[in-house]
Amino acid sequence: MKTAHGDVPTPVFMPVGTQGAVKALEQRELTQAGARIILSNTYHLYLRPGDDIVHSAGGLHSFISWDRAILTDSGGFQVFSLSDLRDISDHGVVFRSHLDGTSHTFTPENVIRMQRVIGSDIMMQLDECIASNVDIRDVASAMRRTVTWAERSITALEEYKPLYGFDQMLFGIVQGGVYEELRHECVEKLIAMPFDGFAIGGLAVGEPIDEMYGITGYTAQMLPEDKPRYLMGVGAPENILRAIALGIDMFDCVLPTRNARNGMVFTSIGAINIRNAKHKTDRQPVDTLCDCYTCSTFSRSYLRHLFMAKEILGLQLTTLHNITFYLRLMREAREAIQNDCYEEWMTEKLKRMNESH
Amino acid sequence: MKTAHGDVPTPVFMPVGTQGAVKALEQRELTQAGARIILSNTYHLYLRPGDDIVHSAGGLHSFISWDRAILTDSGGFQVFSLSDLRDISDHGVVFRSHLDGTSHTFTPENVIRMQRVIGSDIMMQLDECIASNVDIRDVASAMRRTVTWAERSITALEEYKPLYGFDQMLFGIVQGGVYEELRHECVEKLIAMPFDGFAIGGLAVGEPIDEMYGITGYTAQMLPEDKPRYLMGVGAPENILRAIALGIDMFDCVLPTRNARNGMVFTSIGAINIRNAKHKTDRQPVDTLCDCYTCSTFSRSYLRHLFMAKEILGLQLTTLHNITFYLRLMREAREAIQNDCYEEWMTEKLKRMNESH
Repeated sequence: MKTAHGDVPTPVFMPVGTQGAVKALEQRELTQAGARIILSNTYHLYLRPGDDIVHSAGGLHSFISWDRAILTDSGGFQVFSLSDLRDISDHGVVFRSHLDGTSHTFTPENVIRMQRVIGSDIMMQLDECIASNVDIRDVASAMRRTVTWAERSITALEEYKPLYGFDQMLFGIVQGGVYEELRHECVEKLIAMPFDGFAIGGLAVGEPIDEMYGITGYTAQMLPEDKPRYLMGVGAPENILRAIALGIDMFDCVLPTRNARNGMVFTSIGAINIRNAKHKTDRQPVDTLCDCYTCSTFSRSYLRHLFMAKEILGLQLTTLHNITFYLRLMREAREAIQNDCYEEWMTEKLKRMNESH
Repeated sequence: MKTAHGDVPTPVFMPVGTQGAVKALEQRELTQAGARIILSNTYHLYLRPGDDIVHSAGGLHSFISWDRAILTDSGGFQVFSLSDLRDISDHGVVFRSHLDGTSHTFTPENVIRMQRVIGSDIMMQLDECIASNVDIRDVASAMRRTVTWAERSITALEEYKPLYGFDQMLFGIVQGGVYEELRHECVEKLIAMPFDGFAIGGLAVGEPIDEMYGITGYTAQMLPEDKPRYLMGVGAPENILRAIALGIDMFDCVLPTRNARNGMVFTSIGAINIRNAKHKTDRQPVDTLCDCYTCSTFSRSYLRHLFMAKEILGLQLTTLHNITFYLRLMREAREAIQNDCYEEWMTEKLKRMNESH
């Protein structure tokens, strides 16, 4: 995938920097770990620090000193999950900020305008997100509103031009819950519009895992092969590897960073919790096969001590490891695809991850 | 100063890593910032992770993956300030852990034994710390007990030998509060013992600043010139520069790291609080004269955002800057001493730091 801030080989995992920072990780550490693109969030940046500050810095890249690619979620998901929702209509959504209760309105048009101010390489349209366990009629009407908002987002591209001298892509978002006929209808309508890529939204929100894979595969195979396909908010290493097999190119998830801050670290033979008493005197690194600073320098015993003693350094070192682990996994997946042996590679990888130790 | 883990040019500032980690800073960042020695703490390490774990790792250097010098405070100060003190006698102190209320005893002998297990390059004797505003008779008796404990610490060196194949130094601690006659008596007795260096304890605990300088100067000039003189727990940049002029060689203080976590950053023209609204759109670095990663990469505006958004990265970046600032200040002080212009350099430096902006 080519962006205004460098090429991004796919399949790719995007570390999450919701508020313009990947939690507990320095930008140079992200670069060293091989991150080519990070994800940030329009809802959060709009509320804090606010459009004016990002604009006065010359956009988000400059504000956060990150010269590689950035994708911004439109904030639809956050409006529906974090804020105190006041009113939703065809026009847009009125909500109260989760920070200070102030009232705000998001429309398909103004989230494009905000993402022009942010200057993300990939912008996402505003979509209507609803719970996965609701009636099909409600899912259908949210999907149809998302389609209308998609059209208005495309139109808004003309009204709001790029501000910083480089092109920005825009992705549409396929909704439709766990209903194939709704996903089908949504894809049909979206692929007729000139989007640069397509995301699958409304999954990994609590539905059974097989249903998630089923809808992902069903939707992905309808989407054009020559444009990126992005499965939003997924996921654990196994979910990602299986979704790649289903045709997905892009992923984001808070799992590696959030779990790191809870002491949960990934290894090639499964995840472990570093707080566990069995690591008390364990002089091994987290993962003997990992070349990150954490694994090449520190023992599980020391990391456990840092967590028990509530030292910030513990969060830094586990986050660095987990992000390195995810990005290496994606690099290996790309190599396996190029070598035309993805299925075998994945089967072997998952077998080792899921063995008991 | 020569240690088993490398030479340490003096005057030197020792970043504080109480629990075996300098808060929010990676070991490689400490090395890059030029730290040659860090301070850790016997009381904290004894309680958590405990002697057994440090021992099984082969000592603290190995446990925390730090191959430069380490000084450990004996824990006297922490026993008297943090724990629930139960009983103090000539034998030692009985206290309850601030972590879990368990009862422990520190004696001059067993803190030497613990510091052999830790394997610090510089060990400190156990001393009796009392408040600065108490009666001279109480200060005198605490000082005399400290002298007795000094003798027993020297004797304990024979009983407890180094465990990891390298020599460890032992420093005595001068007590005596703000009373010159007590400081004089204490120094007389301590310098007759074969210590490798001497610390001045019991200052910077609330007494007027001029009294602190007065007692520091008075005590320092009585201590032998060919052994390091260490002023414990001091301090702000100005305090350190003035104490160097009084003959002090070694310093430690939580100020640069603790203040960093509160958003207070040092600059060559005085300290600023990065949370202040005036930095909202300030695209300047914290200090234009600083070459640290934080100053060469990020703006005050971004750092302020990280603090307002409670991002861990904010703590990391301000800590890195403050430690870099302190270590550079000490490097410049050493150069000024070598160039025989310390007083002029200090006067100029303090003038700029204290100007209003």
